Amino acid sequence: MEIWTKISKDEADEITDVVKAAHCAFWCEPETKTIRNTPVKAILMMQLRSDGLLGFPGGVVDVGETVLECLKRELREEMALDNARFPVGEDNWVCAHLRQTEQLDGSFKNTQLSHFFSKKLDKEVFYEIEKRQLEAEHWGYEIFGLIRAPVLEITTGSVAQKYPGRGFGWFLTQSFIHCAREQMAEMIIYEGILTKDEIDRYFEMSQNPELREKLINSSCLTENKTRK
Amino acid sequence: MEIWTKISKDEADEITDVVKAAHCAFWCEPETKTIRNTPVKAILMMQLRSDGLLGFPGGVVDVGETVLECLKRELREEMALDNARFPVGEDNWVCAHLRQTEQLDGSFKNTQLSHFFSKKLDKEVFYEIEKRQLEAEHWGYEIFGLIRAPVLEITTGSVAQKYPGRGFGWFLTQSFIHCAREQMAEMIIYEGILTKDEIDRYFEMSQNPELREKLINSSCLTENKTRK
Repeated sequence: MEIWTKISKDEADEITDVVKAAHCAFWCEPETKTIRNTPVKAILMMQLRSDGLLGFPGGVVDVGETVLECLKRELREEMALDNARFPVGEDNWVCAHLRQTEQLDGSFKNTQLSHFFSKKLDKEVFYEIEKRQLEAEHWGYEIFGLIRAPVLEITTGSVAQKYPGRGFGWFLTQSFIHCAREQMAEMIIYEGILTKDEIDRYFEMSQNPELREKLINSSCLTENKTRK
Repeated sequence: MEIWTKISKDEADEITDVVKAAHCAFWCEPETKTIRNTPVKAILMMQLRSDGLLGFPGGVVDVGETVLECLKRELREEMALDNARFPVGEDNWVCAHLRQTEQLDGSFKNTQLSHFFSKKLDKEVFYEIEKRQLEAEHWGYEIFGLIRAPVLEITTGSVAQKYPGRGFGWFLTQSFIHCAREQMAEMIIYEGILTKDEIDRYFEMSQNPELREKLINSSCLTENKTRK
């Protein structure tokens, strides 16, 4: 069993002798609309990983690197990011999460400390950086997709009435690596994109049993289900 | 409640007076590896939609269009596909699925007939088509991400031992639109990428309660969980 807990910067600075990681959310306000004239509030640059899960760019700190050096390296490898033009530094820090893993004897051990950063971009810069990901060293090796996490909600129409959250609420039903979903929630609140109540509401929508039923309904295998 | 049932081409041809849709899986054998020297068996071109779900390019047939005309139009809008260079035709047809939706009186009504197509590409062509998606008319409007569905399995290491399916098994825990997951399974078998037994095994892995627990563990909100 694994537990991820948000901790303060001071607490994080005191924890040594644990694997560290650094990830970053680049985001923008695209000022665009999607279907049914729905405004797109924000988009966050995320990836599909070769393990099949969604996550943010970043990775594990190598021996001899600082957290920020790790982040720069990973952003270059995974996004072909020009770190000089688009620096991510201490002032971009959002939160830290500590993972504790249950051992065979029932005790818990610190096994990872994940730092999370966030950087708002002008939309044109976002689009430029987004495109470059296809040229990155790790495209097709570790990175199997580039996505815009959709902070939006399509509220009109019968489908949205029946299954609220069409957009960000439904997106929260996806599978994320480690604490990426929590890190995403933290930066969305930190950056003022949504309030805590609004995020909580989207999380609730993502837990709706009827929505879950609808989404997993086709996970049955290739046998014919009984036609009505 | 909705039920999706695979039906034959003949059955599909007899069904009129229902909304039709057409989608297509472009795929290739990239002959590359991912982490831990894991071979990538195949990659399928998929999208993240603005509703937060994963799916294949395609869409709903407009009045006056044939199924293939719809597909050509959608591929142009969503992928900027050069249909003349990369035609998708009858010989690319894989399967049809019928959706039946429960009405208020408890009866079931046919509400959608989804045709699915598949086209294998040389890897260099796949990469070329993949890139163009960022130039498509619907990029950023309806389409919020381009992904390579990862048909691969990372089997080495303790994480993969504890949670089998790292790669395609984990990918199957994601949320898909309508019957896209079933369509994906059908074309994977049809194209000989995996056998039915292999696909069934990946679906089983995606249902593993311990994997599900690990993946949803961080869906709790921003309150601190109790640190151990």
